[in-house]
Amino acid sequence: MTWEILNIIGTIAFAASGALVALEEEFDFLGVIVLGLATAFGGGIIRNLLIGVPVDSIWEQDVLIMIAIGTILLIFLFPASWINYYWEKWGSFFDAIGLSAFAIQGALFAEQMGHPFIAAMVAAAMTGTGGGIIRDMLARRKPTVLQKEVYAVWAMMAGLLIGLGYSQKLPALMLLFVTIVFLRMLSLRYGWKLPYRKIH
Amino acid sequence: MTWEILNIIGTIAFAASGALVALEEEFDFLGVIVLGLATAFGGGIIRNLLIGVPVDSIWEQDVLIMIAIGTILLIFLFPASWINYYWEKWGSFFDAIGLSAFAIQGALFAEQMGHPFIAAMVAAAMTGTGGGIIRDMLARRKPTVLQKEVYAVWAMMAGLLIGLGYSQKLPALMLLFVTIVFLRMLSLRYGWKLPYRKIH
Amino acid sequence: MTWEILNIIGTIAFAASGALVALEEEFDFLGVIVLGLATAFGGGIIRNLLIGVPVDSIWEQDVLIMIAIGTILLIFLFPASWINYYWEKWGSFFDAIGLSAFAIQGALFAEQMGHPFIAAMVAAAMTGTGGGIIRDMLARRKPTVLQKEVYAVWAMMAGLLIGLGYSQKLPALMLLFVTIVFLRMLSLRYGWKLPYRKIH
Repeated sequence: MTWEILNIIGTIAFAASGALVALEEEFDFLGVIVLGLATAFGGGIIRNLLIGVPVDSIWEQDVLIMIAIGTILLIFLFPASWINYYWEKWGSFFDAIGLSAFAIQGALFAEQMGHPFIAAMVAAAMTGTGGGIIRDMLARRKPTVLQKEVYAVWAMMAGLLIGLGYSQKLPALMLLFVTIVFLRMLSLRYGWKLPYRKIH
Repeated sequence: MTWEILNIIGTIAFAASGALVALEEEFDFLGVIVLGLATAFGGGIIRNLLIGVPVDSIWEQDVLIMIAIGTILLIFLFPASWINYYWEKWGSFFDAIGLSAFAIQGALFAEQMGHPFIAAMVAAAMTGTGGGIIRDMLARRKPTVLQKEVYAVWAMMAGLLIGLGYSQKLPALMLLFVTIVFLRMLSLRYGWKLPYRKIH
Repeated sequence: MTWEILNIIGTIAFAASGALVALEEEFDFLGVIVLGLATAFGGGIIRNLLIGVPVDSIWEQDVLIMIAIGTILLIFLFPASWINYYWEKWGSFFDAIGLSAFAIQGALFAEQMGHPFIAAMVAAAMTGTGGGIIRDMLARRKPTVLQKEVYAVWAMMAGLLIGLGYSQKLPALMLLFVTIVFLRMLSLRYGWKLPYRKIH
């Protein structure tokens, strides 16, 4: 139950971020829906592909799909001033919830398929960030999660822990979930960056 | 039989549009072939992936693949003046046939797999427009189907109708096919656009 | 055994090329790892998808994944002057080994799945060049293999021969491997280009 609520919050956050990028790029109504859905479900689709879960199991999530479409329609209809106000205030927090919930879910899937811990890390990273990468590619932006801020690392940390045998009981997973959200918000608050280097 | 002819016309139109974009972007000979094939078959491949049809069933379509390669070779060899003349005159019409035939085919596939009607809509849209999206991403263009004109909507309308139980008998499907082609040509003729909005 | 060594060299070359492009685009540490892995394994993943090999068989290659990550870490830590020196000197040669080994491997996979020879050509081309195409798309570059130099053609030649029944015994495959590497280096040395044409 708790899990489903987190999943719903994450789906809403990701669908909204896709819809907002589409509006910024002046996509039309359908483009807004496509980008919203691709952001919300794209990461899970690639994850399923990579770890061997049938991709068409996506259609069993029809409630989530409806919630995502509802979110996108609201974003399309909201006054621009509301969007700018609320997204700036709450957008990052919702997004952190999505990142954390999706990453843990992805790692658990990979574990259930019996793959090595590196698969759990990749599955967590893909589920948490894949939708954002697809969103940026469709909008012809450089994938921000590969360039800025400490973002995917927290997803991979969740994957590593679960891949190495971290408890899959609900209280332990909730602790992990809250920790990931907290670390993501911390890294945003203090502008943490991963090392990078210039070669020219 | 009728169905196969529509499929062939659609494949030719999509292969040609991929090859022409590749020429415009000054891709080399192989790039022209790759972009042509990706445009003709990319939508169907993603559709198969999403609705659980084995992706490698593509290789059973070897006649269609040969037709697509033949089309691409012709485009590469034709005098530029012919291309510009005939493509401007007939290109949109062939493309509308491809959109309509592929969308209906995609929706039928999704129905046969027993997925909910939203899957039929997505399958119709992906089959009809996915190739064009892949084409634009490989050519580093913004996907036009997400930005301009009423295009994918007609595919989704076909998907919605079939997903809601529209007759799958041939005469009914032919009526739907002609209607989609007609609506697409109408929307092009009168410059219909989907709503869009600015948020900045 | 020989085969595994070629596979390792190819993986190292492709992982390094992905990591270097990521550094040039100023991706952060994680972006460098993602682009390196996507370049090394992306072609094989798409190939598996297209010819019907389970995509999650990738996780059985855990030694190769570790080698790729090790390569990427080294690239990230090496002094820039070394990178520029050695990559310019040996990069193309390693890359040619990767192209040749991956192309032959891809064609063999397609043959084992019992697909027609056109599948062997596509599988060879995707395995040899797909990683580079994904790399360029994530870095927002035009895919160079579709635009410049005679590159993918050699992969397709390997695919065509194997698809038409070329011997799959090790000595014959080694001969093919060396020939492809040689032709690729020749086409680089003499700046061979595929035909292209302008239509405007």
